[in-house]
Amino acid sequence: MSGRQQPLDQGASIVSTRDRITGVLSPVVTPFKPDLSPDPERFASQCRWLLSQNVGLAVFGTNSEANSLSTEEKIELLDRLVNAGVDPSRMMPGTGCCALSDSVRLTAHAMKLGCGGVLMLPPFYYKGVPDDGLFRNFAEVIERVGDRRLRIYLYHIPPVSQVGITVALIERLLKAYPGIIAGAKDSSGDWNNTKAYLDNFAKAGFDVFPGSETFLLQGLRHGGVGCISATANVNPAAIARLFATWQSADADAQQERLNTIRGIFAKYPMIPALKGAIAHYGGEASWATVRPPLVELTATQQASLVADLDKAGFTMPGLRS
Amino acid sequence: MSGRQQPLDQGASIVSTRDRITGVLSPVVTPFKPDLSPDPERFASQCRWLLSQNVGLAVFGTNSEANSLSTEEKIELLDRLVNAGVDPSRMMPGTGCCALSDSVRLTAHAMKLGCGGVLMLPPFYYKGVPDDGLFRNFAEVIERVGDRRLRIYLYHIPPVSQVGITVALIERLLKAYPGIIAGAKDSSGDWNNTKAYLDNFAKAGFDVFPGSETFLLQGLRHGGVGCISATANVNPAAIARLFATWQSADADAQQERLNTIRGIFAKYPMIPALKGAIAHYGGEASWATVRPPLVELTATQQASLVADLDKAGFTMPGLRS
Repeated sequence: MSGRQQPLDQGASIVSTRDRITGVLSPVVTPFKPDLSPDPERFASQCRWLLSQNVGLAVFGTNSEANSLSTEEKIELLDRLVNAGVDPSRMMPGTGCCALSDSVRLTAHAMKLGCGGVLMLPPFYYKGVPDDGLFRNFAEVIERVGDRRLRIYLYHIPPVSQVGITVALIERLLKAYPGIIAGAKDSSGDWNNTKAYLDNFAKAGFDVFPGSETFLLQGLRHGGVGCISATANVNPAAIARLFATWQSADADAQQERLNTIRGIFAKYPMIPALKGAIAHYGGEASWATVRPPLVELTATQQASLVADLDKAGFTMPGLRS
Repeated sequence: MSGRQQPLDQGASIVSTRDRITGVLSPVVTPFKPDLSPDPERFASQCRWLLSQNVGLAVFGTNSEANSLSTEEKIELLDRLVNAGVDPSRMMPGTGCCALSDSVRLTAHAMKLGCGGVLMLPPFYYKGVPDDGLFRNFAEVIERVGDRRLRIYLYHIPPVSQVGITVALIERLLKAYPGIIAGAKDSSGDWNNTKAYLDNFAKAGFDVFPGSETFLLQGLRHGGVGCISATANVNPAAIARLFATWQSADADAQQERLNTIRGIFAKYPMIPALKGAIAHYGGEASWATVRPPLVELTATQQASLVADLDKAGFTMPGLRS
């Protein structure tokens, strides 16, 4: 792996925090061909549709099956998106891997392409590791990438990663790398944790994105800056509308409607359900394909999901434009 | 990723199960240089020492910090070992990754080099995945590698991976790929699980390795074939001796002595403790280096570990030969 760059001059690295990604982002689901290789063309088309719905691109998130892709596959997909004209400043790719060498390589590549930020999982194989080791992981990535335009969003998703981002760790990272440590996605599903992030760090310009639109309104009312949510893959416009109009009189009613749609998806394995909906409403059956260890919805589940969604008046306008 | 090979002709693939790796194997700890890159020379030297102690090479195991290495780094290390004259037939590299594409690439490379077998983690990021998805993962690897000399040892380590290998999954895999599904390493720490593997499959030629020498004697008495254990990195000769003489009168006394040494290491974070002991008894301080998210033992822990080991009469003969 490449060695460390010169240490960043922190004194000069304090930057405006307002050149930042905010709003609603989708951990974009990754389309696969029948041989299970990623399909860059359908991927770019999906990203364009999401941008047209005012939703940003947290490609390579949990819901993207990012951890079922190799680093090479992610680099290739990112290159293909940018070459297809998708705006990198709207992208916040997931670049946190188990191996420091992979995290450095992928983060440096995202920076080279001009991505607006990166969403970074902690290394997630070894469990019960100390905050010291996690601090060192993020610090090594920052020092080795060596680019003060880097904006890192820490990714807290203990139900899946089993390794979390504590308030104490954020405090230490913010102190060491102000400006570069830009915020967090909180997918704990625990509002108390989101509130602790907000209460401790929002005023210092640390941007908190709840990991579900279920907490969008509550988050915005407490200083959050949007959300990064699985179901922004399928219900982008309505979620983006609440973000844009959260101070309007109908905000609570909007939130309730979002929760209803989210609740339907939550009855099924999430990633196969998102892909099943895109396959159905976009009329492209091949979208249903997932990589192992995931499995597609059964025909019964798929029929039931679509029946539930139709009954709720759900549509995906412009999906197959 | 490369496409599937022609489906393997299972009718012709039943092979003798006795051309197999058995005995004691070490998940070889990986030495790092000061810049945290792997050190192939010290790695080869460590592997040679382990072989001289009658211990085989489960390189890229959990204790090898394998999941803190990229696929490229593992391929390069494996090439360097073989080029340095280390016998690949004594190697059982860990090749199970989160991404199917990585698992296929690494497994195919191990086969190309002539490795005696591979130890395969299930994809471990996504939790609560169905056995169907895990079956499909292993099946895709087998079909894409397309080499009937492949010997897969399934790696069950739920305390770390959180995704396990059930008896039902083994049964299904054995039926689909007899001969290729060669056995398992059980690091559950739960004797009842090891016994279930043994009782169900040992007679069919499925080779079970407990994941700790604590269960070596008990395993051998119930049809096991050895063990793959962290502490085989530091106490190889004594563990190998029990394997070789397990039917002798002093077997229980040997087991007790092994447990005492194991117990000392188990008081500390295991990987840093293994490396700390090698650094001390081999007189090479640089061996202590770990990659994030792990952290080295503190000076106090290191002194305490060495004091405990010295008191127990522990040595590592021939380590720095």
